[in-house]
Amino acid sequence: MAYSEFRALNEESLVEYIKATPALASKLGNGGDGDDLGDLKIKEVGDGNLNFVYIVVGSRGSLVIKQALPYVRCIGESWPMTKERAYFEATALKEEFHWCPAHVPEIYHFDRTMSLIGMRYLEPPHIILRKGLIAGTEYPLLAQHMSDFMSRTLFFTSLLYRSTTEHKRAIAEFCSNVEMCRLTEQVVFSDPYKISQFNRWTTPYLDADAEAVREDNDLKLEIAELKAKFCERAQALLHGDLHTGSVMVTSDSTQVIDPEFAFYGPMGFDIGAFLANLILAFFAQNGHSNGEDDRKEFKQYISQTIEDTWNLFEKKFVALWDEHKDGSGEAYLPGIYNNPEVLQLAQKKYMVDLFHDSLGFGAAKMIRRIVGVAHVEDFESISDPSKRAACEKKALDFAKLLLKNRRSFVRIGGVVTAMQQLEK
Amino acid sequence: MAYSEFRALNEESLVEYIKATPALASKLGNGGDGDDLGDLKIKEVGDGNLNFVYIVVGSRGSLVIKQALPYVRCIGESWPMTKERAYFEATALKEEFHWCPAHVPEIYHFDRTMSLIGMRYLEPPHIILRKGLIAGTEYPLLAQHMSDFMSRTLFFTSLLYRSTTEHKRAIAEFCSNVEMCRLTEQVVFSDPYKISQFNRWTTPYLDADAEAVREDNDLKLEIAELKAKFCERAQALLHGDLHTGSVMVTSDSTQVIDPEFAFYGPMGFDIGAFLANLILAFFAQNGHSNGEDDRKEFKQYISQTIEDTWNLFEKKFVALWDEHKDGSGEAYLPGIYNNPEVLQLAQKKYMVDLFHDSLGFGAAKMIRRIVGVAHVEDFESISDPSKRAACEKKALDFAKLLLKNRRSFVRIGGVVTAMQQLEK
Repeated sequence: MAYSEFRALNEESLVEYIKATPALASKLGNGGDGDDLGDLKIKEVGDGNLNFVYIVVGSRGSLVIKQALPYVRCIGESWPMTKERAYFEATALKEEFHWCPAHVPEIYHFDRTMSLIGMRYLEPPHIILRKGLIAGTEYPLLAQHMSDFMSRTLFFTSLLYRSTTEHKRAIAEFCSNVEMCRLTEQVVFSDPYKISQFNRWTTPYLDADAEAVREDNDLKLEIAELKAKFCERAQALLHGDLHTGSVMVTSDSTQVIDPEFAFYGPMGFDIGAFLANLILAFFAQNGHSNGEDDRKEFKQYISQTIEDTWNLFEKKFVALWDEHKDGSGEAYLPGIYNNPEVLQLAQKKYMVDLFHDSLGFGAAKMIRRIVGVAHVEDFESISDPSKRAACEKKALDFAKLLLKNRRSFVRIGGVVTAMQQLEK
Repeated sequence: MAYSEFRALNEESLVEYIKATPALASKLGNGGDGDDLGDLKIKEVGDGNLNFVYIVVGSRGSLVIKQALPYVRCIGESWPMTKERAYFEATALKEEFHWCPAHVPEIYHFDRTMSLIGMRYLEPPHIILRKGLIAGTEYPLLAQHMSDFMSRTLFFTSLLYRSTTEHKRAIAEFCSNVEMCRLTEQVVFSDPYKISQFNRWTTPYLDADAEAVREDNDLKLEIAELKAKFCERAQALLHGDLHTGSVMVTSDSTQVIDPEFAFYGPMGFDIGAFLANLILAFFAQNGHSNGEDDRKEFKQYISQTIEDTWNLFEKKFVALWDEHKDGSGEAYLPGIYNNPEVLQLAQKKYMVDLFHDSLGFGAAKMIRRIVGVAHVEDFESISDPSKRAACEKKALDFAKLLLKNRRSFVRIGGVVTAMQQLEK
């Protein structure tokens, strides 16, 4: 079925669409002729923010259909948002799957006119990582898997691996995902630092804290530097929204989804987003502790995961660099970085800069989740507002410290120690 | 005349082309009907490196025709180079003319198929600035004019003035000028730091110096950082080749030409290129001094021009920022940078970073002119090789110092003083 123009599907028209699309039908029934697709089970599971998401189960298999609407679903047509984001999501998913198939769901079908993606259904017990962390569930392979995903997707789409010709072509393509970038610019780098109708926080407890963010010149200088990097520096293909709500997990599987904010930007924005959301989860634990579980052990798990994620990322990233140092990447030519000493020095400098970028972007992501428009369930699910505010305040204070003093940290261990001390 | 495919013109076919092109014919004769174009005077004046350049004079006016060939003219078809560079040159010239008409020649006609630009002829006594500086001619308005050109073209094409939507659209377009960027990457950021068949230097005098550049780990770390900025950071529309050979001057006119390397890159690359070529001119003066003129006074003029260029640039750039701080630029929103103190702090930080970028890129441009493929006439015209090498060595030593220690300079005055001390 080839619609000549966009139309939002419902459960009924979706069945017709699937039957007419061999790439989808063949995943669900016998041969794709539609004959055995009579009893498809369809369930809408979108979290309600942006898109429609359907789980479709047939006699022989299952899949997920995701359709972007030309506005923000939870707000309505008054907040338009390009449905072309589905194109960039599909393009990024394919690229990420290419480099890291173990941690990215496969795409079966993409229809640009319909802004519709057909992809692997991440079957139970996959759940959103954020929900797992709120429930206090440990995922022992998380750091291992996420460092795989980040090191591979970032390295292979950077100039450490690519020629500038490939790089500029890809940059140019993703420049068109500008609407999504602008949304990030607004909600991460701008609104929290000014009066905005969209900002909210746990009032009245954090009123003074929100105001302090809006009046902190040092923060404003740091956020300007990071915003410039976000807007100007095309270092690698980013997921663009790599928080714990964009990751689905089981005890042995980790799958990264939803890269509709993908673009070429500074690597630290992805790494920082993931680390920041682990840090938010850490500071939220006191709100989830109870007589049965004081969450002390789980806080230790999160701390260790933060540390492992960065350390494993760094190790794997540098290993990829070593492996491909004589390859096609044009940033560090083998004729120049031609002895182990200079290569190691170059790698050390690169990784220190990336570490500081990651801490800075991570801090910015934390701040916006506490005094900006979009909050995280880690805190939102703490029903007692004074308890929630106490958790949020510590996270906010840590984020401010990190944003201002990130260059004084040399190892992730020091960051984790500072986090634990502030939390006590 | 509309050719359906590219063909290189000669003086004869150029006349036919002009007669058939009203936008050109009307600049030269009466009404563009070709009747009064019988006695066009045509002179080929290309400097021989890349393009054919014709001066065309008619009964009522004059113009210049520049045609790009699909290879490097001085080497031949064995070094292909996209003739599409003419498209980017024309696009950049129009943009620069829009923002700074006083210092950019007007374009009358562009033919993408033919890679042909028709533009204002910069009439005598306009000469190439580099030749004027070699002759020891002072241009008292040079710093004033070049700071105008750089502050206006860089400010108005940056996120200080533009929305991210406009910015990303423009970045995407200029991503296609990648072949020219790659040439810069190779000759500025790579070849001088490795063994390359293209490198040359004044041998045997500078043999050890050229080798020292290739074995200096500190230089290699600095050049990697600058190369990354060049490849990844789309801060503003750059001229891309802003040396003293891309500027034509008289005592009261300054015209910037030849932006075929234009792309969105770090501002410091343009500013540094211009300052660096003044510094090269400074170090070359001892090779041009003689009994009649010891060039002492002229060296003082160049020193003052270097200082004035940066200081005037900074002043004008910040003034544009102040003037447009409540405008459409999205980097520093008025709601955030909402008090004079924080705006001044932000501007100071921005300008210091830009100053250090400019010094770094400038140093890189100097090094490549001494041990890389393309040298400058300032030194090449010194016929005694030992004398030339002595000048070049001082310039090279200064460039290395600048590349490694640029962050220790806070004002341009300090840079000029260090330059003068090293030259003595």
